Amino acid sequence: MRFTSQATLDGVTEQLFALDGVPGVLWTPDGASGIRPLIVMGHGGGQHKKAPGVVARARRFAAEGGFAVVAADVPNHGERPKDAELDRIASEIPSRVAAGEDAAALVAALHALVAGQVIAEWQAVLTAVQQLGNVGAGPVGYWGVSLGGGLGVPFVAGEPRVRAAVLGLAGSPGLAGTAARITVPVQFLVQWDDERIPRDRSLAVFGALGSAEKTLHANPGKHGDLPSFETGSALRFFARHLN
Amino acid sequence: MRFTSQATLDGVTEQLFALDGVPGVLWTPDGASGIRPLIVMGHGGGQHKKAPGVVARARRFAAEGGFAVVAADVPNHGERPKDAELDRIASEIPSRVAAGEDAAALVAALHALVAGQVIAEWQAVLTAVQQLGNVGAGPVGYWGVSLGGGLGVPFVAGEPRVRAAVLGLAGSPGLAGTAARITVPVQFLVQWDDERIPRDRSLAVFGALGSAEKTLHANPGKHGDLPSFETGSALRFFARHLN
Repeated sequence: MRFTSQATLDGVTEQLFALDGVPGVLWTPDGASGIRPLIVMGHGGGQHKKAPGVVARARRFAAEGGFAVVAADVPNHGERPKDAELDRIASEIPSRVAAGEDAAALVAALHALVAGQVIAEWQAVLTAVQQLGNVGAGPVGYWGVSLGGGLGVPFVAGEPRVRAAVLGLAGSPGLAGTAARITVPVQFLVQWDDERIPRDRSLAVFGALGSAEKTLHANPGKHGDLPSFETGSALRFFARHLN
Repeated sequence: MRFTSQATLDGVTEQLFALDGVPGVLWTPDGASGIRPLIVMGHGGGQHKKAPGVVARARRFAAEGGFAVVAADVPNHGERPKDAELDRIASEIPSRVAAGEDAAALVAALHALVAGQVIAEWQAVLTAVQQLGNVGAGPVGYWGVSLGGGLGVPFVAGEPRVRAAVLGLAGSPGLAGTAARITVPVQFLVQWDDERIPRDRSLAVFGALGSAEKTLHANPGKHGDLPSFETGSALRFFARHLN
């Protein structure tokens, strides 16, 4: 793990790093030392580790929750090299949606192509970050919606270090089957008028989650309209389960 | 408005009162003076103004939120005289549910019988309580689920002083039409495995709400299994909209 830059703003330190070719960013409370909860954050499709929503959420989790937060570019995103096949699939989605088609199959194909690789990368990042003196091997949470939800469901299902997760905006065919293997507490976010994910598929993923504690938070609006107050709700959910 | 008793415990003062034959209870932070947000709280069917869940929630709203909270016995509940017709309808519900029937029509009939009367009573209580020196005419919220949701939907729809509401566990036929007239922010609670209210009817009431801001909170479990962490969520929702 190689750190390449460090900057502190408003009480939160942001460090860029690379781990075996995967570029990432770590946020910690300024001057933090010792073990603390760590949130792994997955970004959305077409976004990257420092997309504005990711940064705003991560900084708030660090400043208000005292958490460490880590995000990494998934393949074909951010600073990573372009993959022609992934590009082709991603570029088809808007036009298929505009034509009135259900884009779920395309999204599922996209997620399946990257999921296996991403999960191994996130596990390696998690292991490396937990060896740092200002993070340590404390409780781990996961936050991710849309692409970060589609990848997050298999990540949380297969990673026993994750103890609580905020997931959502994901309803690809087959995802419910994977969701059934999740047993940790989940807050599951749904946009009621999501133009990309049929509502019944979203509700099916929530219903399938194997967790004894799971809460569906559904808000009006389209795929990109997640209200900002859900960040506060996620923060309190993680505080309740990881502190 | 006639106060009949007063007691203070853990920083919250509880005052019993009667207003035109309606018995009620008011909780305020101990020593409070001046205008503060007021939450009108509706109790569940078969419960009353001092049911354990009502008291615990009201005390937390007063202690942690600094709110005033008022609850009153609805007809045929608590200290109010028995009504034979209401009793007969209420007593039929468990056996009809046990026989595998959808109890929604029975619940709807019960709610319709009491709704008109209760709304006028709550409006009178609201007016009287807001004239007290330690409450005043500040912002008003409403909290009620089950019977308190079935009555709360028409109350919130028709009472312009209410600026935010937590409603739920209600899906009687016809309720969606009334919900469409609500325009204030709503947090709507659904139990995913509610044995009394078909899930699609609950979701239809949420979908029908005319509010620009509305959030569905759905949790696993039956009608009576609402998780306690939803009290904290309601408190923060009211703090966001009434402070």
